[in-house]
Amino acid sequence: MRMIDIIEHKRDKGVLTKEEIDFFIKGYVNKEIPDYQVSSLLMAIYLNGFNIDETINLTFSMLNSGDVVDLKDVKGIKADKHSTGGVGDKTTLVLAPILAALNVKLAKMSGRGLGHTGGTLDKLESIPGFNIYLNSEEFIKQVNEINLAVVGQTSNLVPADKLLYALRDVTGTVSSIPLIASSIMSKKLASGADIICLDVKVGSGAFMKNIDDAKVLAKTMVKIGNMLGRKTIAVLTNMDEPLGLAVGNNLEVIEAINTLNGNGPKDLLDLCIEISSLILEQAQNINYDEAKAMVLEVIDNKKALNKLVDMVRYQGGDTSYILDTNKFDKAKHVISIKANKKGYISEITAIKIGVASMLVGAGRSKKEDSINPNVGIVLNKKVGDYVTNDEILAYLYTDELNDEALKMASEAFVIGDNKKESKLILDVIKGE
Amino acid sequence: MRMIDIIEHKRDKGVLTKEEIDFFIKGYVNKEIPDYQVSSLLMAIYLNGFNIDETINLTFSMLNSGDVVDLKDVKGIKADKHSTGGVGDKTTLVLAPILAALNVKLAKMSGRGLGHTGGTLDKLESIPGFNIYLNSEEFIKQVNEINLAVVGQTSNLVPADKLLYALRDVTGTVSSIPLIASSIMSKKLASGADIICLDVKVGSGAFMKNIDDAKVLAKTMVKIGNMLGRKTIAVLTNMDEPLGLAVGNNLEVIEAINTLNGNGPKDLLDLCIEISSLILEQAQNINYDEAKAMVLEVIDNKKALNKLVDMVRYQGGDTSYILDTNKFDKAKHVISIKANKKGYISEITAIKIGVASMLVGAGRSKKEDSINPNVGIVLNKKVGDYVTNDEILAYLYTDELNDEALKMASEAFVIGDNKKESKLILDVIKGE
Repeated sequence: MRMIDIIEHKRDKGVLTKEEIDFFIKGYVNKEIPDYQVSSLLMAIYLNGFNIDETINLTFSMLNSGDVVDLKDVKGIKADKHSTGGVGDKTTLVLAPILAALNVKLAKMSGRGLGHTGGTLDKLESIPGFNIYLNSEEFIKQVNEINLAVVGQTSNLVPADKLLYALRDVTGTVSSIPLIASSIMSKKLASGADIICLDVKVGSGAFMKNIDDAKVLAKTMVKIGNMLGRKTIAVLTNMDEPLGLAVGNNLEVIEAINTLNGNGPKDLLDLCIEISSLILEQAQNINYDEAKAMVLEVIDNKKALNKLVDMVRYQGGDTSYILDTNKFDKAKHVISIKANKKGYISEITAIKIGVASMLVGAGRSKKEDSINPNVGIVLNKKVGDYVTNDEILAYLYTDELNDEALKMASEAFVIGDNKKESKLILDVIKGE
Repeated sequence: MRMIDIIEHKRDKGVLTKEEIDFFIKGYVNKEIPDYQVSSLLMAIYLNGFNIDETINLTFSMLNSGDVVDLKDVKGIKADKHSTGGVGDKTTLVLAPILAALNVKLAKMSGRGLGHTGGTLDKLESIPGFNIYLNSEEFIKQVNEINLAVVGQTSNLVPADKLLYALRDVTGTVSSIPLIASSIMSKKLASGADIICLDVKVGSGAFMKNIDDAKVLAKTMVKIGNMLGRKTIAVLTNMDEPLGLAVGNNLEVIEAINTLNGNGPKDLLDLCIEISSLILEQAQNINYDEAKAMVLEVIDNKKALNKLVDMVRYQGGDTSYILDTNKFDKAKHVISIKANKKGYISEITAIKIGVASMLVGAGRSKKEDSINPNVGIVLNKKVGDYVTNDEILAYLYTDELNDEALKMASEAFVIGDNKKESKLILDVIKGE
């Protein structure tokens, strides 16, 4: 078998065989196939497509390219959740404790955020002392004892995806549905969960600009998950604004704690309840309404909050911060961003809020960059709100004055004449 | 400007600007843009196309990527000829002396053959003593004195094409009309001729499998040449069999000499007369029939043959071989290839004859391979001929017995029940 023939096969609109896909992934990981042949094939896949069988075969080959997390020593049902990338998305910090309180295990391996804002690991590290580096034994022991742990991903989990993603990023081949689906699903499948819930973001700031593409992506991923023996569900959620109010590491942790205390922003709370209920429904074979009632109960009786406290204690963090969020350090400056006209907010462009947060230090523009846990943006208004001229739209938390970030955050707010009804959860896709 | 944006522009079916194309070529030649980004763009060009403006801009950027041969010190009209790749194609060896005898200059830079059979340089080097390494002064002096010289290409002629061609070869992006057209035309334009004649081969063994694609390629190249100020003509010629009878280095030189002596195979002679006449028509602003009469005259009176003798003498070769072709070394074995059925020959698959010749040593499979000047194949029958069972189809000239080459050469002959009329020159494309 030769890579050139595989490239020409896809170039000429052929359907690649399982063997061809496996040859290409193995050869790339083993450094026998050079980047320039892979990027040529990726562009051919981008333009000529991959059918569902090719996508499943690609996922499977990628999954087998490295280690697979073995969770057989974790007793009970294991769940995992993945978002295709949202600004202000701290759902894991809320729903993992909820599910843990309901005896669903979350043995979560997470990555660092590259892009606008920090990832889940960066957020957790804003809690003083919190340690994301557990060895395999400690990780499994913790999950067995308290039902949850969030740790850094091992370096050899789906190496094919690391290589392919880095190449796609610089060769114009990121936004391809089969490539996105196989990238996400290979990692989720490798992380060993029985139930997988995918949060597919839709909107101008997301990979998927429209609902039709998002549905295709969601259905593709659900099909892959089910074909490979996992219960897989997808929710399609609107991203015409950041999720919740806070964007930035300790700001988001504080908001997650508030939400577990029953004082969170409505959209964040709603999404966490929805995803938790969908996962619980699958885990315990009960109906959605029963599941939702159980979810509401563990928020109400603080059992979920206590699970977060447990996790922080197990992973070496200072739990007093969870019990009193005033202890978190604050940024030096909190600058108000004001409306320059009156009207209804119709969009808060998530990517601009994300980039503005990154500019003040909440995210990385390069892998080597360090993150400032205290900075970011807290929204004061959401889509659908009416504002008068000079009313405060948001607060920029920053240690240094930064005009570019201020301008970018201000430009994120689109104000119009008509009130826009914004729906958060657009669709739920379950397996057939 | 960023390469990723250029890739995405073409990926999304945009028309690349002159600046974008120039940025990509300059960046690639300067090693600022990596192979993997270029191969991704090449696949996008392959699948989404290039319009005529993009193709002209690409040609111009490639032309300017390195040295341009300065022929201003060569007096008179300079012509050049290029074939898209034929097996047994020794037309340069015949038509260059014809045109030189008619006072059209051929200051020809040629490449080595990579692929099935040797290039023009390899063929000339089968004449003992022949030197292809002239410096610029010697080259121009020779052309001024005897109207022709054939030398090796300088290493910095269109470096962008060398890089791009090597990359296209391994990334499935060779057979793209705009990429082929710009590759050929950038080299032809860089070599400084006033008149360019392109021989576009059509058939199963050629880049262009059908006449429609070949016409598009020919028209594209003629347009590029004319836009950049050169008189450019293209002839479309059939390649359902090798040109002439001989394939292999000294075998082809002998056939070229025979043709200049009036004893060549009809198809080779016809093509050389056609191309010479078309070039002469352009060079002297006369009509085709006048041009053709002049061409026939210099073959008949041996003035053309004498020009070949002159060139061999100027370039250090032993002219006695030209005057007596029996002096050329012969291969150790001459093996007859016989028909295994009776009927009319409908095709002699050129690529199989080429590969069989390469297998016995007439061409290179790798750049480093050396060439045996004495080996190859001489056809005994051509398309349209009737053969009986066991009649000799061809002779394999080889120093070592090679069953694979014999089998391949034998399989090249397609024998059927009906006589096929084969037309050599399918079309002539001139500028508007």
